[in-house]
Amino acid sequence: MEKQLHVELMKYTPVPIEIIATAARLCYSASDIHQLLENMSGEKGEKLLVKLMEMGHESPLEHAVFTFGIEGISRACTHQLVRHRIASYSQQSQRYVEEKEFDYIIPPSIAGDKELKQKYITTMEELGNLYKDMGSKIPIEDARYILPNGCETKIIVTMNARSLKNFFMRRVCLRAQWEIRRMAIEMLRLCKAASPLLFKNMGAPCTSTKICPEGAMSCGKWKAIPGAKIMYKGEILSKEEIEDKDK
Amino acid sequence: MEKQLHVELMKYTPVPIEIIATAARLCYSASDIHQLLENMSGEKGEKLLVKLMEMGHESPLEHAVFTFGIEGISRACTHQLVRHRIASYSQQSQRYVEEKEFDYIIPPSIAGDKELKQKYITTMEELGNLYKDMGSKIPIEDARYILPNGCETKIIVTMNARSLKNFFMRRVCLRAQWEIRRMAIEMLRLCKAASPLLFKNMGAPCTSTKICPEGAMSCGKWKAIPGAKIMYKGEILSKEEIEDKDK
Amino acid sequence: MEKQLHVELMKYTPVPIEIIATAARLCYSASDIHQLLENMSGEKGEKLLVKLMEMGHESPLEHAVFTFGIEGISRACTHQLVRHRIASYSQQSQRYVEEKEFDYIIPPSIAGDKELKQKYITTMEELGNLYKDMGSKIPIEDARYILPNGCETKIIVTMNARSLKNFFMRRVCLRAQWEIRRMAIEMLRLCKAASPLLFKNMGAPCTSTKICPEGAMSCGKWKAIPGAKIMYKGEILSKEEIEDKDK
Amino acid sequence: MEKQLHVELMKYTPVPIEIIATAARLCYSASDIHQLLENMSGEKGEKLLVKLMEMGHESPLEHAVFTFGIEGISRACTHQLVRHRIASYSQQSQRYVEEKEFDYIIPPSIAGDKELKQKYITTMEELGNLYKDMGSKIPIEDARYILPNGCETKIIVTMNARSLKNFFMRRVCLRAQWEIRRMAIEMLRLCKAASPLLFKNMGAPCTSTKICPEGAMSCGKWKAIPGAKIMYKGEILSKEEIEDKDK
Repeated sequence: MEKQLHVELMKYTPVPIEIIATAARLCYSASDIHQLLENMSGEKGEKLLVKLMEMGHESPLEHAVFTFGIEGISRACTHQLVRHRIASYSQQSQRYVEEKEFDYIIPPSIAGDKELKQKYITTMEELGNLYKDMGSKIPIEDARYILPNGCETKIIVTMNARSLKNFFMRRVCLRAQWEIRRMAIEMLRLCKAASPLLFKNMGAPCTSTKICPEGAMSCGKWKAIPGAKIMYKGEILSKEEIEDKDK
Repeated sequence: MEKQLHVELMKYTPVPIEIIATAARLCYSASDIHQLLENMSGEKGEKLLVKLMEMGHESPLEHAVFTFGIEGISRACTHQLVRHRIASYSQQSQRYVEEKEFDYIIPPSIAGDKELKQKYITTMEELGNLYKDMGSKIPIEDARYILPNGCETKIIVTMNARSLKNFFMRRVCLRAQWEIRRMAIEMLRLCKAASPLLFKNMGAPCTSTKICPEGAMSCGKWKAIPGAKIMYKGEILSKEEIEDKDK
Repeated sequence: MEKQLHVELMKYTPVPIEIIATAARLCYSASDIHQLLENMSGEKGEKLLVKLMEMGHESPLEHAVFTFGIEGISRACTHQLVRHRIASYSQQSQRYVEEKEFDYIIPPSIAGDKELKQKYITTMEELGNLYKDMGSKIPIEDARYILPNGCETKIIVTMNARSLKNFFMRRVCLRAQWEIRRMAIEMLRLCKAASPLLFKNMGAPCTSTKICPEGAMSCGKWKAIPGAKIMYKGEILSKEEIEDKDK
Repeated sequence: MEKQLHVELMKYTPVPIEIIATAARLCYSASDIHQLLENMSGEKGEKLLVKLMEMGHESPLEHAVFTFGIEGISRACTHQLVRHRIASYSQQSQRYVEEKEFDYIIPPSIAGDKELKQKYITTMEELGNLYKDMGSKIPIEDARYILPNGCETKIIVTMNARSLKNFFMRRVCLRAQWEIRRMAIEMLRLCKAASPLLFKNMGAPCTSTKICPEGAMSCGKWKAIPGAKIMYKGEILSKEEIEDKDK
């Protein structure tokens, strides 16, 4: 059965800005930690956070940690996800959990073509039946070798805000693969709901650092962002400068 | 002025056992994450945690994260602490923060010898004065080259429960240096107050894994722990076996 | 087409024991590094290494680094592999590389059953054809959603000797999944050829630390290893002790 | 006695560009690893490396690893160094190694002032004598609490080329503390001697990414680098743009 993406923000460091601002302030202050924490609990902490983000002083972001429950994603997607090493993962195992329901993800390019979609669904169902069949003769951990990349999986992910910043830069970008991008956008939406200021400028590089690193591969979105530039063959160019080059 | 150790558990993942048990369960279950979380919120989660710890299935522990504010420790101590790489640190900088008060730590072996203690305090005060003096001529970041290892510092530390388990094994052990050990014991006390079951068996290897890895260097405490063994020249020996060898 | 596992040790730190022994010695010596290095180049370095391994002093192992080229493994296998975070990976991308040949891995349990094997190969070929078909209409990164877990991939992996020690403990063990285990055994074989002493006792926990952590799930092999014990419900037991319990 | 900085490149991945280029190429190619390695051994590998660096595709850099032996640095310096977590360290221990010679580092600002320098050296000698004195009554691990930050230490450091790139960006910059900067510059010099092309553009951000992130704190050097820009209050500005702002 087709499965839709579902992301939940399960747990996170309470009042994350407070601890980030306190940690950042500690580096430059002789005060007691307790005193700093009180001081940084309201607007003052928020002001410091804005400054930190502008200066690119990222290490204090690590003290705020977020845990997501993610369902309705394919194994193709999690194989990319778990390459992010500054994170913790617990994933449903295909060695131990039998795929009884056999849920799967349908890529939009397939969903949009009636004929292809029908072929895709039929194939998934046939593979599901073959899997069950094989599973009666051999261990499910071997039967799964015929299961497709599109097969649904579930995963719990914990990342700190610094690692999330990097994750969003790589995966919210239009150049990322559509499924991990859709998931990253949903994670970012939940983060922004939990702490709007902390995640305000997080996202693709064009919004996050105002530099598109994609060069000739760029989608061009950066041109619409005030002050944004592009990295092109080792140079940082403005909209005007790159248009000059193109002439 | 002499400064005493002060550790505070500033923030931690709310209801840590719940998320750990849910993550552990997910690996072996076809259920929805939400459903698992509800299921694991009470006694059931606690039972699963006990089983996890017995089996040494440690990765789900990473989803529970703890942030400490630590004061009244020496730079000798933090130089050891920051060697633990699966952690996040924000530390008071001697480049930017002037040591006006000039607080310091006194090792017990010095505190216990009246004459030595007096000598130590006088030296600290002289160094404090010299530092201030130099600081009026050169940058404080250079004046600090005469500041001693015993100089007080403050640090904020974030570690997940798996990294803490390893930290406690290395640093609660009697073979650890006294100051980092004292600090680790205090961190463990606060963790146990926050989540008694999660940290129940954490501590030195003799309590945590029931194997003392210290061989000929062992303090011998393991002999008093029922079922504990020792790693001795690559062999795991019981109290009786090692006594046989000693004969 | 069926593809066989092929592992190559592409690069590694020259004379690894030399640097490991020097690093270990430095912690406890006032000598110059250069002098230590000379001293540790022959038999002396080897003796120190043996001692280190016995004492479980593992951090110096990190200075020796090994890079493997691995082919003929399935995506099911690499999804497990890349979960090891203290390592570096470069993997053939299914987003960009078209699976023209469509190679795949056949699990032994399938290869051993003539009928199943035929069914498996036919399915793989059908999926390969469907993939090519779809790839003419939609991006290959979407067509790959029907590609099976058994699909062949190539990966370059770099790990240091400490991370390898942990990797071998988890993956050479009989309880590991057969494919990653076969690969880990081959990696270990190549490591032993490059530096016999360094990797001498590496492998499953029963040989590496002489403690089987698998409890009731244990394969029982540890019983044949002189001095080995088992972790059973939080206790370390000898062969005799567990047999007493079983009565 | 005063000690001078001495850095040695002890070991590194042989022909590092070859493995980096092969790993990078593998992601986008259907070829065998062996074939790619042969292909990438000469000029072709170098060309690909240049392209990688321009595109900011950094992960293949991790397969090349470098080990340094470093002497003649202060504990103030190593306390900063070991904060870089994607690295391996083995350091001379003040718990176990008696500081018999008592060597130390003299900051240039002190060396340049005759009177200060004399005071500094006298203080160091007095502390050295007091340390020896205390060491006869209490453990050296406690006597060291009076040892100054300027005390010499030795350390062996292993980092991969990606982590080195980040290290050089943070520590070769003029805003870094002078001692770790001097050390980083020396490490970079040795790296460039070993593999000129790989480390060609590594260094401070103004040369490495052509963006100075220091904003109002910038040393201004970026203005002399063709095409370089500055990050100023969240904006990327050219020399001309910032001069306009200043008006």
